[in-house]
Amino acid sequence: MIPLTRQYSEPPGAVRARDDHHHADRVALSAATTDGVHMRTADVRAWIAERRAANVFHVERIPFADLDQWGFEGATGNIVHRSGRFFTIEGLHVVEHDGPHGDGPYREWQQPVIKQPEVGILGILGKEFGGVLHFLMQAKMEPGNPNLVQLSPTVQATRSNYTKAHGGTNVKLVEYFAPPDPERVIVDVLQAEQGSWFFRKTNRNMVVETVDDVPLWDDFCWLTLGQIAQLMHEDETVNMNARSVLSCLPYHDSAPGALFTDVQLLSWFTNERARHDVRAQRIPLADVRGWKQGVEAIEHEDGRYFKVLAVAVKGGNREKISWTQPLLESVGHGVVAFLVREIDGVTHVLVHARADGGFVDTVELAPTVQCTPTNYAHLPPEDRLPFLDFVLDAAPSRIRYEAVHSEEGGRFLNVRARYLAVDADEVTDPPPGYAWVTPAQLTALTRHGHYLNVEARTLLACINAAAAQPRGGA
Amino acid sequence: MIPLTRQYSEPPGAVRARDDHHHADRVALSAATTDGVHMRTADVRAWIAERRAANVFHVERIPFADLDQWGFEGATGNIVHRSGRFFTIEGLHVVEHDGPHGDGPYREWQQPVIKQPEVGILGILGKEFGGVLHFLMQAKMEPGNPNLVQLSPTVQATRSNYTKAHGGTNVKLVEYFAPPDPERVIVDVLQAEQGSWFFRKTNRNMVVETVDDVPLWDDFCWLTLGQIAQLMHEDETVNMNARSVLSCLPYHDSAPGALFTDVQLLSWFTNERARHDVRAQRIPLADVRGWKQGVEAIEHEDGRYFKVLAVAVKGGNREKISWTQPLLESVGHGVVAFLVREIDGVTHVLVHARADGGFVDTVELAPTVQCTPTNYAHLPPEDRLPFLDFVLDAAPSRIRYEAVHSEEGGRFLNVRARYLAVDADEVTDPPPGYAWVTPAQLTALTRHGHYLNVEARTLLACINAAAAQPRGGA
Repeated sequence: MIPLTRQYSEPPGAVRARDDHHHADRVALSAATTDGVHMRTADVRAWIAERRAANVFHVERIPFADLDQWGFEGATGNIVHRSGRFFTIEGLHVVEHDGPHGDGPYREWQQPVIKQPEVGILGILGKEFGGVLHFLMQAKMEPGNPNLVQLSPTVQATRSNYTKAHGGTNVKLVEYFAPPDPERVIVDVLQAEQGSWFFRKTNRNMVVETVDDVPLWDDFCWLTLGQIAQLMHEDETVNMNARSVLSCLPYHDSAPGALFTDVQLLSWFTNERARHDVRAQRIPLADVRGWKQGVEAIEHEDGRYFKVLAVAVKGGNREKISWTQPLLESVGHGVVAFLVREIDGVTHVLVHARADGGFVDTVELAPTVQCTPTNYAHLPPEDRLPFLDFVLDAAPSRIRYEAVHSEEGGRFLNVRARYLAVDADEVTDPPPGYAWVTPAQLTALTRHGHYLNVEARTLLACINAAAAQPRGGA
Repeated sequence: MIPLTRQYSEPPGAVRARDDHHHADRVALSAATTDGVHMRTADVRAWIAERRAANVFHVERIPFADLDQWGFEGATGNIVHRSGRFFTIEGLHVVEHDGPHGDGPYREWQQPVIKQPEVGILGILGKEFGGVLHFLMQAKMEPGNPNLVQLSPTVQATRSNYTKAHGGTNVKLVEYFAPPDPERVIVDVLQAEQGSWFFRKTNRNMVVETVDDVPLWDDFCWLTLGQIAQLMHEDETVNMNARSVLSCLPYHDSAPGALFTDVQLLSWFTNERARHDVRAQRIPLADVRGWKQGVEAIEHEDGRYFKVLAVAVKGGNREKISWTQPLLESVGHGVVAFLVREIDGVTHVLVHARADGGFVDTVELAPTVQCTPTNYAHLPPEDRLPFLDFVLDAAPSRIRYEAVHSEEGGRFLNVRARYLAVDADEVTDPPPGYAWVTPAQLTALTRHGHYLNVEARTLLACINAAAAQPRGGA
C-alpha cells in the first residue's frame, strides 16, 4: 500500500546545514547544458512523433449514455465513477462578497466543477550523467492533449492509479516517489491546479534524484534542463504537469534584490487574501443554474466558458488499454501573460492576486493576464480585463517569450493557451491586486503550496527556460 | 470600508535586498531587554489586576433561549446571529480514510464546530523607545478567560468588529493594520486556529512598527520582548492571540543546522499531508450524531470533549457594553507538550503531523502531545496517545518550561492547558508522523500559514521566551 512513511535515519554527527545550496548549483549546471548524453534536443521532436506512431491512440467523443463505469448519480446528477474513486463532476456556487475578482465580471455564479480530493504524484526522476543532472521525461499519451503525446514527468499518477483502482498495470518508477528517499529529494511540494475548473485539487510536485541504474523503456528519455528549456519554446510539447514540477526547482537569485522585500511581498499577499471574501459551496450538478445538459455535453446557456463531455479512449502505452471518461473542453483559446519590466536592471513580472472558486485559500498569485478572451467579447469596454488589450496588441518586438501550451490532458480536451512574457516598462503604477515581483521571489514561493497558481507556475518555468536557453540560443 | 489596499510607492533606486535581517536584529535586542521604558515587569501583574478592577465585568451562563440576536436556525438547527455575521455553530462529519490520526481514536465522527469564515486581525504595534523595540499590549477582557483580563495584541478584531457590525465603538489603532504601511511591516501572515473546534478559521497575525506618537489609553502598555518573555512564564497572563502573533516574529538561527535540511523537512511534511486522507463535511447541527441538546448545553452523550453553551456578558472596556453569545467549554484541562532533545548540541523539538477536521489542508504541525487526557481515560492501554504518559510522568528536573495558558476567550469558556517542554534525550527513534526539528526551522515556517497549528505556535513562543528569559532569569 502506497504511500507509506519512510524511516529517517539519524547518523552520528547528525546536524547539518539547513540550506541545500548544492541543489541550486546543480540545477544551474543542468540548465546551462544543452547537450544531453541520451538524445540530441533536435531529435526529441522526432522521438515523440515516433512514440505517437508506435502506439495507436484513438479518442472519440461519445454520448454520456455510452460512458462505461461512469454515470449520473441519482439525486445529485453528479457524474461519478462506479468505484467512487478518481474524480466527480459536481456543481459549485461561488459568491465574492466584495468582488468581482475572478475570471469573469460576476460577483456570483454557478458552474460545474471537477472534484478530485485524492492527492496525485507528479514526479520527475533526476540522475547525474557526466556530472550533469538529467531528468527522466516520459512521452505520454493523454486523451485531452491536442497532439495526444507530450513530454510528461517520469511519473504522473493519481492515488487510484498507483494503488491500482484501474485494474491496470503498475505505474513505472513510482517507488522513487512514494515516499521518496529523504537524502535524494530536491523538490516535494503540494501545488494546486486550475481553480476555475477544479475544486481544491492538489498534486504532489516532486523531483527526486537517484544513483541507481534505471531501466530505459521506449517511452522515456533523459534530458538536461537546458534541453528541456529549448523544448519549452516549442508549442504543445511539454505538458502542464511537467511545467508545474519544473517551476518548483531551486534556482539561485543572482539579482541584487527586488522592488519589495520578501516580508513586504508576503504582507501584500496576505492583504490580498484577507480583503477577498470568496465563499464557494459545492452543490449538486443537477442544480447548477445557467447551464444546460444535452445528450453529449453540459454547456453554458450562452455558449461561454467550457463544456463537460465524454470520450472513449483506446491506447497502448497507458495503464489501461481502453476506457471511457468525462472531460472538460474550453470554449475558445486562452491567453496567459506576464508583463515584464526591468527595475534598476532587475527583471520583474507583474503578478495578479487572483480569486477563484476552487482555490483552497481564496487567492493565489496568477499571471498578469489569464483568460479566454471570447468569454469577455460581449462585455462593454469598461469591463475589459486589465492589461488584456495591452497583451493582445503587443508589438512582436515586445514579446520576450511566446508558445502555445495545453493544459492537463487527463481532464481537459484540447484546452490550449498562448503563454507570453511581454515587455511593459511603462507600467509603473499597477492597480490594486497587482504587484511587481522578481522570478527569484516566485521561485522561493514555489517551495510552498498555494502561492503560485498553475498558470503562473507554467509561466515561471517558461521564463526560467527563456533565461537559460533563449529561443534559437544554445 | 476596511480593508483596502495601500499604494506601494516606487522610489527611484527602488531595488533593495530581499531579506530583512535588521528585523531579526531588533527582535533579538528587544528579547534581551528586560527593562521597559513604560512599566517594570514586576508591576504588570498589578496593572492587569487594576484594569480588571477598574471595569466591572460579569459573565453568566444562560439558557440558549435567553440569547439575544442569536438563535437556532430553523431547518439546520445551526446557532446563528441574526445579522448573519460573526460566526455560526454547525455540525461536522469527519472521515479519516486511513486514520485515526486526530485528537481521538476514531476514524469517523461527528461534532459541533464553529464556522467563522471572516478573517480577523490580530495586530501588535511596535515602536522603538531608546533604540529598543517595545510592543503595545492591551489588558483585554474576554468572556471566556478564566481570569477575564489577559494581555492581548494591540488590536484583535473580527471583520464584523472593525466594520462595526456590533454597533459598538471603533477598534482603537486598527488603522495601523488594515492595511499596514509596507515600509513598517515585520509580521503579516494568515494562521489557522484550533482545528478540532473551528472549521477553517484563520486570522491575520501582524506586527507593524510605527514612529508616531501613539495615545496611551489606560488599557495599553508598551513592553519589550524580554518583559513579555518573563510574563510567558506566568499562568494565564498572555492570551492565545498574543502568543500566536509573537510566535511569528523573526529570530536569527544561531545553530549550525538541524537534523533535517529545510528541503527534507518540507518533504517529510508533504508526505504527511499526502498520506492522510481526511474528508470533513459540514452538516446541520441538528443532524450531529452522538451529541444531545439540552436547555443550557449541547454535550457529548458520554460527557466527553466539550459543550456548547451560552453566556451573558456585561463589561466596560469592550466594543459593546453588554451582549450574549454562545461559547464552547471543554471537558477537562488539556496537556500540550513538546519533547525536547539536544542533537549535536542543537536543541530540537518533536513535532507531530496532526490531522484535524477543521484544518484547511489536512495536516498541520502540532506539539508532540496535544490532548485532553480525560477524553482518553476510558481507552485500553494500547490506544493511549504516544508520549502522553511520558509527559504526565516526567520528573520535575526534565521540565524546561511549564505554564498554564488559556485558549481564545472570545469563543472558549475556561479552556485551559498545561504547556510544557520536556527533556527527552532518549527518544531517538520517533514513530511515523513525528519528526525532530529545531525551533529556528519552526520560526521560518511561521512566515507562511498552515504549517504550525495554534498550539505549536504557543509552544514555540514559550520556547523562544524561555530561551530569551529563563524563569527567574534576567
